[in-house]
Amino acid sequence: MSKITYPILIINFKTYIEATGKRGLELAKIAEKVSKELNVCIAVAPIITDLRLISENVEIPVLAQSADPVNPGAHTGHVTLEAIKESGAVGVILNHSEKPLRINDIAWMIEKAKNLNMYILTCAPTPETSLSVASLNPDAVAVEPPELIGTGRAVSKEKPDVIVKTVELIRKNIPEVHVICGAGIEAREDVVKAIELGTEGVLVASAIVKAKDWYGKIKELAEGLLK
Amino acid sequence: MSKITYPILIINFKTYIEATGKRGLELAKIAEKVSKELNVCIAVAPIITDLRLISENVEIPVLAQSADPVNPGAHTGHVTLEAIKESGAVGVILNHSEKPLRINDIAWMIEKAKNLNMYILTCAPTPETSLSVASLNPDAVAVEPPELIGTGRAVSKEKPDVIVKTVELIRKNIPEVHVICGAGIEAREDVVKAIELGTEGVLVASAIVKAKDWYGKIKELAEGLLK
Amino acid sequence: MSKITYPILIINFKTYIEATGKRGLELAKIAEKVSKELNVCIAVAPIITDLRLISENVEIPVLAQSADPVNPGAHTGHVTLEAIKESGAVGVILNHSEKPLRINDIAWMIEKAKNLNMYILTCAPTPETSLSVASLNPDAVAVEPPELIGTGRAVSKEKPDVIVKTVELIRKNIPEVHVICGAGIEAREDVVKAIELGTEGVLVASAIVKAKDWYGKIKELAEGLLK
Amino acid sequence: MSKITYPILIINFKTYIEATGKRGLELAKIAEKVSKELNVCIAVAPIITDLRLISENVEIPVLAQSADPVNPGAHTGHVTLEAIKESGAVGVILNHSEKPLRINDIAWMIEKAKNLNMYILTCAPTPETSLSVASLNPDAVAVEPPELIGTGRAVSKEKPDVIVKTVELIRKNIPEVHVICGAGIEAREDVVKAIELGTEGVLVASAIVKAKDWYGKIKELAEGLLK
Repeated sequence: MSKITYPILIINFKTYIEATGKRGLELAKIAEKVSKELNVCIAVAPIITDLRLISENVEIPVLAQSADPVNPGAHTGHVTLEAIKESGAVGVILNHSEKPLRINDIAWMIEKAKNLNMYILTCAPTPETSLSVASLNPDAVAVEPPELIGTGRAVSKEKPDVIVKTVELIRKNIPEVHVICGAGIEAREDVVKAIELGTEGVLVASAIVKAKDWYGKIKELAEGLLK
Repeated sequence: MSKITYPILIINFKTYIEATGKRGLELAKIAEKVSKELNVCIAVAPIITDLRLISENVEIPVLAQSADPVNPGAHTGHVTLEAIKESGAVGVILNHSEKPLRINDIAWMIEKAKNLNMYILTCAPTPETSLSVASLNPDAVAVEPPELIGTGRAVSKEKPDVIVKTVELIRKNIPEVHVICGAGIEAREDVVKAIELGTEGVLVASAIVKAKDWYGKIKELAEGLLK
Repeated sequence: MSKITYPILIINFKTYIEATGKRGLELAKIAEKVSKELNVCIAVAPIITDLRLISENVEIPVLAQSADPVNPGAHTGHVTLEAIKESGAVGVILNHSEKPLRINDIAWMIEKAKNLNMYILTCAPTPETSLSVASLNPDAVAVEPPELIGTGRAVSKEKPDVIVKTVELIRKNIPEVHVICGAGIEAREDVVKAIELGTEGVLVASAIVKAKDWYGKIKELAEGLLK
Repeated sequence: MSKITYPILIINFKTYIEATGKRGLELAKIAEKVSKELNVCIAVAPIITDLRLISENVEIPVLAQSADPVNPGAHTGHVTLEAIKESGAVGVILNHSEKPLRINDIAWMIEKAKNLNMYILTCAPTPETSLSVASLNPDAVAVEPPELIGTGRAVSKEKPDVIVKTVELIRKNIPEVHVICGAGIEAREDVVKAIELGTEGVLVASAIVKAKDWYGKIKELAEGLLK
């Protein structure tokens, strides 16, 4: 179950206090439970300080939220891909709009991640930037218009054309890269719509982390993946 | 023993592969052993992904190597002081020359750390910048001429005037801030000299991490603190 | 007249389109006119692309809005202090809250500016950070609470304690550094109040740049400096 | 002559003191002279403080060396595309390895530059990153392996495969984007080779700026473009 498969629900814990430490572990456990019940891939991206704790205690895929473009060595305060892997995570999210990266660094990290056999999801704000990062051969791209992130106004409903164009551009040019969508996903119907538009999953943060009923909300969204 | 006291030996694990994961824990355990044997404060600053693992398994103080100037919330890929504290670390190193920070951010984090009851060690490359960061009221300042870091040529022997001037400036203006020195510290005599020059401890990385005999090297340097 | 004297009115053109190119030159000319009429120092900080144009055509002091911490050489896309000086500017503003800098870089540039005989005004958001940057020995510090910048709610009226504390801290510790205040300065009385609180000048942007009557607004504010 | 045509020689002045101010203007004048004599396009990219001076005094295309991803407004210390255009430059170089940019920012600036009718040359260190930035539709891409920049060991001789692969990838996927090469170009034969490998020009810095005979060196390289 710790392998990434599609369709996928990826839960980004960001640095929400509600999903840090023990509570982060609890959230990951519930995600694991739903994943098993529905037999659908659910991955979690906890805050970096909880990466090992969660990796050691759940069997679903764990991702880091970002990484730094350095090798092991004299780089105080940085996070290497090696350390992320060693902590039990299977991969990393790069270029989230809250942690944008330089193109040269994204390329360097994707190449390195392949050698380390790690999974890379690269975010991008538009169809054009999605194609741009896709051409660096990550495993998947998440298109996320930043103006919708955290709003509860789902990209799949508010800007379906962004998704359609992204799917089209990537399918045509680099069909091996999976397309995921994010930003504003809040309800089952948003996920259903995202799948209908041709994506293979969703990236969700506040809608789940801030939900009162974690189990209910994760189940609702994961069911959307299954139609 | 998890309280910071002076004189102090702080071991910075940086992102060295030799001090990541299990090996990082092993190194921290050895530091703890020496700390107890000699009854001297030894703190460790592991890579961020190992912060919790090490905090949960040793009784000496654990520090993060850096932090980001954000509050908990929608900040994908960042590290908050709250998450660092929650993982069991007692404080954080800021502005290491390998992770230099903006002055406004250092000030913001020091003020916040005080509210969180966390220890802050701020690094600076020169006497003038040491005074500058000291005036923001961290617990301690580590003066580290970057050109000596990792060279094995100890600042206390190569540039004693840098230390003397830093100690003088800070004692005169902000006497409550402790002064530590780093960069190139390699042998017992480098530590002895650092203490003679008026500092209250040393910040060491490669000399320990790259040593074949971790126990012997940590003991050698820690003994230097005791004259 | 191209020498910096106190009290001083410094006009920051930012990247406002209203103060770019020919219009920037026109604004600088009007500042020069008022400076001569009132015999008070008015400095202008145009957008970097206009630095030479304006320096060559006015006799009042011209400042760059920021600089990069590099020497001349292979640094594509950077701005050296040497190039700023060569273009005719007498100095540079560092660490404006819209262009915050690393403490180590501010220190490096201040030291270098002294060797180049250039004037440095360093901004800071709070009394504590003002003292911190003042200890690096710039010519002057401008305290600017960022939450008031561009609001028209003058720091001298809204947060007089911020100014009082900054003046006090710097007078006591580094009395040779001049204190200027900024953020929200809009009217003559804001300037009068800033001087009463112990500062030696004001840093103003939108209140002048966006004014319909540049001559009238500059004159109004400059007169405030003279009581 | 101020229009960009191919083949092209682009001279990057970086922040070399030898090409700053009056000397920068002199270098641009010589480039203009050679351009007219050989009837070949030569563009210059001076330090930002000289952009207007040089644009006003030569008829060859002038480019900025970088730009910031902000609109006109309250952005102290930044350089807008609007200010660059207003100063007389026809376009801008983005993502030089000495000034690497975030992918999201490159995309934003390319789209904006098109609306402003400005020319964009985007640099990239490898074939893969060249394709990635090309997919954002700049006018041209310059592939420059950073390890060869400034070495005098021309990419066209040392790493011809890098150029061949870049040309191939871009011709196949985004044929409207021109490919230029840089890094280590020093002599006529390096330029000839670059053209033979399928590029439409070269980006040169130190080989020209540091040459004793500017006229001779520019002529030598420009002739290489004409075979």
